[in-house]
Amino acid sequence: MPLDDYPPLTAASDRQQLKLSERLFATRRLSLDIARPLSPEDQTVQAMDDASPTKWHLAHTTWFFEELLLKPFLPAYRIFDDRFAYCFNSYYNSLGERHPRPKRGLLTRPRADEVIAYRAHVDENLRRLFEAPFQEGARSLIEVGINHEQQHQELMLTDILALFAANPLRPAYRTEAPEPAALEGGAGEWRAVKGGIHEVGHRGGGFAYDNESPAHEVLLRDFRIFSRAVTNGEWLAFMEAGGYQTPSLWLADGWGAVEGEGWRAPLYWERVGDVWHQMTLYGLRPVEAARPVTHVSYYEAEAFARWAGGRLPTEFEWEIASLGEPQPAPFDFARLLPSPAEDGVSPMFGGVWEWTASTYLPYPGFKSLEGPLGEYNGKFMCNQMVLRGGAALTPDGHMRPSYRNFFYPHQRWQMTGLRLASDA
Amino acid sequence: MPLDDYPPLTAASDRQQLKLSERLFATRRLSLDIARPLSPEDQTVQAMDDASPTKWHLAHTTWFFEELLLKPFLPAYRIFDDRFAYCFNSYYNSLGERHPRPKRGLLTRPRADEVIAYRAHVDENLRRLFEAPFQEGARSLIEVGINHEQQHQELMLTDILALFAANPLRPAYRTEAPEPAALEGGAGEWRAVKGGIHEVGHRGGGFAYDNESPAHEVLLRDFRIFSRAVTNGEWLAFMEAGGYQTPSLWLADGWGAVEGEGWRAPLYWERVGDVWHQMTLYGLRPVEAARPVTHVSYYEAEAFARWAGGRLPTEFEWEIASLGEPQPAPFDFARLLPSPAEDGVSPMFGGVWEWTASTYLPYPGFKSLEGPLGEYNGKFMCNQMVLRGGAALTPDGHMRPSYRNFFYPHQRWQMTGLRLASDA
Amino acid sequence: MPLDDYPPLTAASDRQQLKLSERLFATRRLSLDIARPLSPEDQTVQAMDDASPTKWHLAHTTWFFEELLLKPFLPAYRIFDDRFAYCFNSYYNSLGERHPRPKRGLLTRPRADEVIAYRAHVDENLRRLFEAPFQEGARSLIEVGINHEQQHQELMLTDILALFAANPLRPAYRTEAPEPAALEGGAGEWRAVKGGIHEVGHRGGGFAYDNESPAHEVLLRDFRIFSRAVTNGEWLAFMEAGGYQTPSLWLADGWGAVEGEGWRAPLYWERVGDVWHQMTLYGLRPVEAARPVTHVSYYEAEAFARWAGGRLPTEFEWEIASLGEPQPAPFDFARLLPSPAEDGVSPMFGGVWEWTASTYLPYPGFKSLEGPLGEYNGKFMCNQMVLRGGAALTPDGHMRPSYRNFFYPHQRWQMTGLRLASDA
Amino acid sequence: MPLDDYPPLTAASDRQQLKLSERLFATRRLSLDIARPLSPEDQTVQAMDDASPTKWHLAHTTWFFEELLLKPFLPAYRIFDDRFAYCFNSYYNSLGERHPRPKRGLLTRPRADEVIAYRAHVDENLRRLFEAPFQEGARSLIEVGINHEQQHQELMLTDILALFAANPLRPAYRTEAPEPAALEGGAGEWRAVKGGIHEVGHRGGGFAYDNESPAHEVLLRDFRIFSRAVTNGEWLAFMEAGGYQTPSLWLADGWGAVEGEGWRAPLYWERVGDVWHQMTLYGLRPVEAARPVTHVSYYEAEAFARWAGGRLPTEFEWEIASLGEPQPAPFDFARLLPSPAEDGVSPMFGGVWEWTASTYLPYPGFKSLEGPLGEYNGKFMCNQMVLRGGAALTPDGHMRPSYRNFFYPHQRWQMTGLRLASDA
Ligand SMILES: [Fe+3]
Ligand SMILES: [Fe+3]
Ligand SMILES: [Fe+3]
Ligand SMILES: [Fe+3]
Repeated sequence: MPLDDYPPLTAASDRQQLKLSERLFATRRLSLDIARPLSPEDQTVQAMDDASPTKWHLAHTTWFFEELLLKPFLPAYRIFDDRFAYCFNSYYNSLGERHPRPKRGLLTRPRADEVIAYRAHVDENLRRLFEAPFQEGARSLIEVGINHEQQHQELMLTDILALFAANPLRPAYRTEAPEPAALEGGAGEWRAVKGGIHEVGHRGGGFAYDNESPAHEVLLRDFRIFSRAVTNGEWLAFMEAGGYQTPSLWLADGWGAVEGEGWRAPLYWERVGDVWHQMTLYGLRPVEAARPVTHVSYYEAEAFARWAGGRLPTEFEWEIASLGEPQPAPFDFARLLPSPAEDGVSPMFGGVWEWTASTYLPYPGFKSLEGPLGEYNGKFMCNQMVLRGGAALTPDGHMRPSYRNFFYPHQRWQMTGLRLASDA
Repeated sequence: MPLDDYPPLTAASDRQQLKLSERLFATRRLSLDIARPLSPEDQTVQAMDDASPTKWHLAHTTWFFEELLLKPFLPAYRIFDDRFAYCFNSYYNSLGERHPRPKRGLLTRPRADEVIAYRAHVDENLRRLFEAPFQEGARSLIEVGINHEQQHQELMLTDILALFAANPLRPAYRTEAPEPAALEGGAGEWRAVKGGIHEVGHRGGGFAYDNESPAHEVLLRDFRIFSRAVTNGEWLAFMEAGGYQTPSLWLADGWGAVEGEGWRAPLYWERVGDVWHQMTLYGLRPVEAARPVTHVSYYEAEAFARWAGGRLPTEFEWEIASLGEPQPAPFDFARLLPSPAEDGVSPMFGGVWEWTASTYLPYPGFKSLEGPLGEYNGKFMCNQMVLRGGAALTPDGHMRPSYRNFFYPHQRWQMTGLRLASDA
Repeated sequence: MPLDDYPPLTAASDRQQLKLSERLFATRRLSLDIARPLSPEDQTVQAMDDASPTKWHLAHTTWFFEELLLKPFLPAYRIFDDRFAYCFNSYYNSLGERHPRPKRGLLTRPRADEVIAYRAHVDENLRRLFEAPFQEGARSLIEVGINHEQQHQELMLTDILALFAANPLRPAYRTEAPEPAALEGGAGEWRAVKGGIHEVGHRGGGFAYDNESPAHEVLLRDFRIFSRAVTNGEWLAFMEAGGYQTPSLWLADGWGAVEGEGWRAPLYWERVGDVWHQMTLYGLRPVEAARPVTHVSYYEAEAFARWAGGRLPTEFEWEIASLGEPQPAPFDFARLLPSPAEDGVSPMFGGVWEWTASTYLPYPGFKSLEGPLGEYNGKFMCNQMVLRGGAALTPDGHMRPSYRNFFYPHQRWQMTGLRLASDA
Repeated sequence: MPLDDYPPLTAASDRQQLKLSERLFATRRLSLDIARPLSPEDQTVQAMDDASPTKWHLAHTTWFFEELLLKPFLPAYRIFDDRFAYCFNSYYNSLGERHPRPKRGLLTRPRADEVIAYRAHVDENLRRLFEAPFQEGARSLIEVGINHEQQHQELMLTDILALFAANPLRPAYRTEAPEPAALEGGAGEWRAVKGGIHEVGHRGGGFAYDNESPAHEVLLRDFRIFSRAVTNGEWLAFMEAGGYQTPSLWLADGWGAVEGEGWRAPLYWERVGDVWHQMTLYGLRPVEAARPVTHVSYYEAEAFARWAGGRLPTEFEWEIASLGEPQPAPFDFARLLPSPAEDGVSPMFGGVWEWTASTYLPYPGFKSLEGPLGEYNGKFMCNQMVLRGGAALTPDGHMRPSYRNFFYPHQRWQMTGLRLASDA
């Protein structure tokens, strides 16, 4: 077994610190749980330039705590290996030179067990940090570190899927697959939302990323949004109607991707005999009509919406429409696929990341943080599209109305789908 | 001389048609005037994938009239050469297969003089069209055709500059260069604009593109905008301050371009001894501090603004601030450079295209036109940034508050610059 | 007309110089004759990286004389334009920096007529050189210059064909096309050649390149060589037998090219309805079965030979077999296609360049020349295959038993074919 | 421990079969020994397109026996996993579709321990094969299989070095490094060899590849060959003399590689402070002057020879000169570097693979084998250069005068060096 069980936590007196530390170590433990079904080989290889090896994710999230928390805040902290900063920095120019991203898969050393030891070393020191009152600033850095690691947990899962989908043996990451869905998810319906001046963005308590601020007012027009995400069944209809062969449905850059990449279906779909199948974290499965479509690019989502006579919602329409939506079910290894629509409804959180019509841009008055965390979000505010909602494999705490996810419009390896909107 | 003088126009009875026809044939004539200083060689070569040969522009704008106007509206129109549709369609999927864009420069045939003959044939038939009352729909297509050709006129000039800048002989396109500018353009000042709900987009009379509609309300915050564009002198200060060597100033994709392309200065700048020079349509000239900087990408503009402590305006801030700005001077071959700032002021129209902070996206309720013109604008609404204003070499009639120009954020071969904004 | 008639030569007293000067100026004139049917546009564009513009060939061959002959040997020679050395040096590192090869097509300036003026200036000075006795070394440099220009004449023709074949109008370079060939070229027969020690390479009088020396002995085995080149008809049979779909016939690198480039027929072949056509300097023509196949790569030639049960001859087998072959007919604009086989025979000189099984390597004891001419041949002695014979469009004087032409095994834009050999 | 000890062999009655089986199982065991110091991670990753993962080598050599020996010759053989043929076929078109070479590193499954199980399964069946008299043809296939696996053993070592050299931690594959060499290897001397007709190629007993046949006569001129390989010390002198900055020393394609790849030293050399170091299978070591230079391309070897006033020998000169050379020392994990020259002598076998001036081409009368083994050697006979000798890490039995190794002239990741020759 490549990954040892994680040692139990020690108690801590401060009540609030206890809760923070509980969340911290639960997060640290979940990363190991995600890696557990993987061999050292699986953890090491980089499926493609956009993806990273599991082992790299495990080490990078650890380096993040070491670099931003332990080095500045824990007196006499001993660095585990001073060469790891070069290996496991992702993109922080302010934190020094780093290993090139497309070559992360060449790092067979440190081995998977050495990365586990690195994690144990950092975790032990994180526990020591909790033994005394915090210095100023540490708390919010721990929050960032937790949220950072959770984001990487989702990437670990999508990157593993990319790796296993490239393997002719089509291995399954886990075996506790959900039951086949009912054949139909229900017709669904349009829900009307009133326009006017609405406030969007993060307000009030709880953690949020800098890109959700400042909260501000936006002017919306009346609009409608659909009660469920677009399903695989609808996508099959789009394919059968020649959607991938009709340039007038597509943005110019999207049509360029269709032709250049030879897209004919969502990523991970393949024909087995006469039946469309889909590679999933549970291995190859027949495509189920009632589940939300996944692994489509913005270009595909936008073309589908045009074909269907609707459009994508803007990120603010989406945000306003999502207020009052139910909280998603907790993260569960037995539910790594979006649940099928039922009676025409699929929830806005916890199914698929839903492409919006909005480019990822700063909010009015946005200021990047000082220091290295200023590189976390702001420098990516160009060329990417906002996704809202959160997927079946998104960690708890990463789904809220103001949360902004973002990817390039051609990218498909995340669990991405769409929900239609239309003018009122 | 490669291009013959254009024959004079015949009279027409209908007063309104006269004015339309006058504008049509004046536009047609200007295209030939732009090509006149060029040899057949110059007109044929494609400087790079983004650019097109002059000859191709001359033929493509002609095909546009032939295809959309003469074929449907002029009875018994004889097509000049039925192979030209393949050669000179740009990107209209609905109008058939076409020659690949990066290979436009391979079309040594038809020759430049044959393209002139093609233009004469189409122009003569356009005149015949004016001899009888119009069928429905033709008038607006002529308007589109005029505006289309004018857009290509600006591209002809920027594409010629790209071609001549790639020539080690650094040829001058024209010799009637403006005088050197005064050393300083003045300090300039911030102008305050009140926020609130403003109406933007095209309203009322006159031609406008579909992408300027529907006019709609937007909610702005109070902001300030600067009285002049950023100058070459300021850009030199940015360079000397290490702007091109400081990753924290840049968007991630921008820094990738700096490193990948080796950017160290605006496009067309080169050092001659100790002095920065700039390749222009008048040949190589020393960089003049008081003129607006040109040929910078969005990435560079955005980084400069960060360095300068400001930001780029959104397209709507820009539009509101431009209401009441003076009309630009008419197009003039002796003024193909942006005029220097005077007393700290440079006008918002007719100097440089000014990058905004807004992605080129459809307005709420935007609908593409039916038919081939639906491909004119809408399918490019992704991945590009909006520019506003209009450059020294922009044709008359293409500068108005609601006009939206758009290019990819890495592109630099247009006459692009910037003007700073800031929060109030 | 883009190219003026060439002025007549003046007389010269020295008998030998007369003959040399006659050949020199006849060569110079032929280059202009080759360019004559071309517009300035045609002369300027570069069809692909491997090809060069006609205008560039005209200027480069002129620079060769200016640089190597006039500058060192003609007192008080005035350089026509000192920037041309940068523009028109091809690959001589010892003669300074130069314009990048793939960007030769961007040189719209100097114009075609300026290149003609450059040629006239250099020619006039070459005539002045002949007015006095030569300094030592000039004679052989003139010989090299003539032969150099002749090599470029063939390239001009093949590069024009590449350009016109990329034009959807499929223009004809010349109209004096040969008559369609008889349907069959005859069965042909094997000719036996005795092995043993043979001398190969250049001996005795007349010009030869350094790569033909030193003459030396080689040991050959008995072999057979076919009486004619492989014909289009045979190539069609290869295609119909699935030659391009059968990996076992191909070298690994060849099969990589078939798959990577999508080869399904010789270059310039295209289907018009049910009939294979071939783009030629006379425009698009039906493929004629009796003519030698042309525009095949080494990979294709080698695969064909395997399919046919033969093999390619080595360059030395070819050379020995060619001794006593008839001299080819003089260069003729009405015969720019290889003549059809007659009665099973096609001559070894003047039809197609015939791929051999030999890599282009130095002969034992080969020494590169001192100075810039040392870069002429020797530095290309790697990765290329030797071709022997000479094509229909090869200039007179470039076909002799010891002559070694060479190209990379994937290249197809030269007039290349093959002749089978086999073990005795 | 990733690799289990190999089980002992059972006895066999046939004396000759015993010896064959001894060699077979010793070879099989050595592959596991080579993999033993490697973690599953190390065994899985592909350092670059030219290299393959250790695990892939282990499985591919096993598939070779399964496919060519067990399936046809062992009755009732049960295939281990019928999907492995797709995964582990290298390039045999005749044996079906296969996983793309540049994606071998994506095969995290089967895991390293599953590949070991695959090997055990095949080995057990190979032992069963030896329990009965052989059917016709099996013996020579076993010989080929042994030699094939030995070739892959060398590749395993060079591919591991490529992987570890790409790791910023610069791991050592093994620790039993040889002592530092004496500072100087001795001056060396020229050895004269008489020309005339010599016989080359494989004759007589013992295994040889098809590419060593037919033995045939060649005609050589008198020549000289040096008593030792070129050393690191000499290479440093070449570097200090500006060898990598002087285009006149290089073939055109070689100079293109120098400029395109930024070559400034042999592969794996790097500066640490002021001292050149070299990444080796024992980790990073200072460059030792007396050892033969390694990891240079043909282009570099050829340029060095020109700079040194010599040339590379042809493969036949090398072969004749090597007759009577001492047999190399047995393969030894403590001697994975070429031994330093002593008293000016380094042996021709067992130090470095020595680039020759000969392209890898078929011998006169060469015929590919029938069936899949016909793809073993013949289809690579183009574009590659012959190397002779054998390196410190070459397995026993792969060094003989007639042995022909071959690589592309730009490749450097094999243990390649050179020895000078000159005309008599
Ligand atoms: Fe991160
Ligand atoms: Fe257009
Ligand atoms: Fe040349
Ligand atoms: Fe193999």
